[in-house]
Amino acid sequence: MKGIFRHMAEYINRQWRLAARPVGNFKDSDFTWHEEPVPDLADGQVLVRNIYLSLDPTNRIWAAQDSYLPAVPLGDVMRGVAVGVVEASRHAGFPVGTFVQGLLGWQLYYVGNGQGLTPIAKIPGHSLLLYHGVLGAIGLTAYFGLLDIGRPREGETLVVSAAAGAVGSMVGQIGNIKGCHVVGIAGGPEKCRWIVEDLGFDAAIDYKHEDVAAALTRYCPKGIDVYFDNVGGAILDAALARMNNFGRVVACGAISQYTSEKPPAGPANFLLVISKRLRIEGFIVLDYLPRAQEAIPQLLEWIAQGRLKYRLDVVDGLEQAPRAVQKLFDGSNIGKLVVKVSDEP
Amino acid sequence: MKGIFRHMAEYINRQWRLAARPVGNFKDSDFTWHEEPVPDLADGQVLVRNIYLSLDPTNRIWAAQDSYLPAVPLGDVMRGVAVGVVEASRHAGFPVGTFVQGLLGWQLYYVGNGQGLTPIAKIPGHSLLLYHGVLGAIGLTAYFGLLDIGRPREGETLVVSAAAGAVGSMVGQIGNIKGCHVVGIAGGPEKCRWIVEDLGFDAAIDYKHEDVAAALTRYCPKGIDVYFDNVGGAILDAALARMNNFGRVVACGAISQYTSEKPPAGPANFLLVISKRLRIEGFIVLDYLPRAQEAIPQLLEWIAQGRLKYRLDVVDGLEQAPRAVQKLFDGSNIGKLVVKVSDEP
Repeated sequence: MKGIFRHMAEYINRQWRLAARPVGNFKDSDFTWHEEPVPDLADGQVLVRNIYLSLDPTNRIWAAQDSYLPAVPLGDVMRGVAVGVVEASRHAGFPVGTFVQGLLGWQLYYVGNGQGLTPIAKIPGHSLLLYHGVLGAIGLTAYFGLLDIGRPREGETLVVSAAAGAVGSMVGQIGNIKGCHVVGIAGGPEKCRWIVEDLGFDAAIDYKHEDVAAALTRYCPKGIDVYFDNVGGAILDAALARMNNFGRVVACGAISQYTSEKPPAGPANFLLVISKRLRIEGFIVLDYLPRAQEAIPQLLEWIAQGRLKYRLDVVDGLEQAPRAVQKLFDGSNIGKLVVKVSDEP
Repeated sequence: MKGIFRHMAEYINRQWRLAARPVGNFKDSDFTWHEEPVPDLADGQVLVRNIYLSLDPTNRIWAAQDSYLPAVPLGDVMRGVAVGVVEASRHAGFPVGTFVQGLLGWQLYYVGNGQGLTPIAKIPGHSLLLYHGVLGAIGLTAYFGLLDIGRPREGETLVVSAAAGAVGSMVGQIGNIKGCHVVGIAGGPEKCRWIVEDLGFDAAIDYKHEDVAAALTRYCPKGIDVYFDNVGGAILDAALARMNNFGRVVACGAISQYTSEKPPAGPANFLLVISKRLRIEGFIVLDYLPRAQEAIPQLLEWIAQGRLKYRLDVVDGLEQAPRAVQKLFDGSNIGKLVVKVSDEP
């Protein structure tokens, strides 16, 4: 029997806790596994069973240092965005059976006051994975980052890095829908083939095997108007060198820098910001969550029309999370990386 | 006798031509002096006698490399903004006696088709120096850079570097007028005293004798909302570290980098652009010249009200230009640097 009367000790939680500040890529030993019964709910608390846990480049930031959120304290459950279902509740705002999304953590059961959790609707015909594939942080990042910050106009040239990544692949497709000439930068021939042949990018640059600056000149004959940056570092510099006057750089991520053991170097071509009158603007998708409903109907429509495709990389079992997250930083994953924690109802 | 019938050979031109690409600060030997008669005017040409020549940090960029304008070719007259008066004309758009402003060059007489020259009005009660002091590039840079790019709101904290410079001193005063808490960064006690006591800045930081990062913490207790950057380099990094979320960086200049013999390093704190959701935007005042009339009445009113003060550093004689321009890069000038080329009518 489920609900507010069920005895919590029946729930055995399983958690990954942060054991060490990562140096370079994550290592297995940065996390420790804990199992313990869930405590009884206090008044106002809710228990959520996590179903799908999202693994994202920003996890590395959260584990390493204070940034736009405080660093995860050592010994605490690792922070992570997940979707889950309320299984027990002493909070009138989250009745049992409600699907929710939020910072539920790398664990089977979340217990807390529900702050920051957002109720989500199960979309008929879709798995809850949709909320990691396109309706969650990934889709909203691509949608608002490109349209609100990058503001591409029809006929302009859009370049996106980490173009086979979860965000990048969606940015390029939205750019296509908006009538841009879209060039993606990705690592390796398989990723490059995928974004051109399956997703409809106009061109792809394999940064592992090509000179990016030369390729940008070749594939962006009219220069770059919008550069959606997921990687920072040398590729950002190459893009800056090819930007048109009044170009816009969407500073979304800098994955090339997150695992660096040296202090990151700033972009050497920074002076071009002045001479080319560039706008470089950073953003965090959390700021846009209150506007999610502006984007979701449009994203669903594009999916239904087959104009927005995405690939999921679903790893089965919470136990796999520390190993899986490392794939984000060694370039080995394609598509949105998700850990399946438990079954959808 | 003046006018289109006067024989041009009566006009002996005097010019500084660019002889070498500068390395580090300008040197006297980067320029060579030429005297020669002015050629007869062709149909559609105009002859302008230069009166006041503006010396600006961007001169170093023009002399060194292609940027937002092509580099000045070696052997050509050095490029420079000046105000002058039409003394002979075969161009109906520029009758004799018209005052004009534009890229008239480091010379006594400009001869050309008038492209890019703007007629200017002599403002009653003011010297034509007004067009270098506040109504020309300097005032428009401060006005549009701060208000259009920086968009400060009342009560916000504005920091400006090179604050005793021609642009910086005006930016701070406009920030004051708009109700900002204004902190200037300048080199040396005399400049710092001037911007606080005479111009009304709330605080000044002497970067030559103070730790800028510590001083920004002290003088900007609520963080920085708008940073108007004229210098780049280490001071830009210190400002980035102190920016508030959603802060704006007006990328106006990077004088610390112009004379560097090493390739400039990008801002090491660049990753903060993402986590703090900063907007860094470059601009060039030339883009705003068509909107000058939006600003000029307001600037004149503030001057008349005593709310906008400026200091001129007028050097007498075109011969002095190569030596004078070096003062911009060794920190020794205060106020707008102008060379008086000939007398006002």
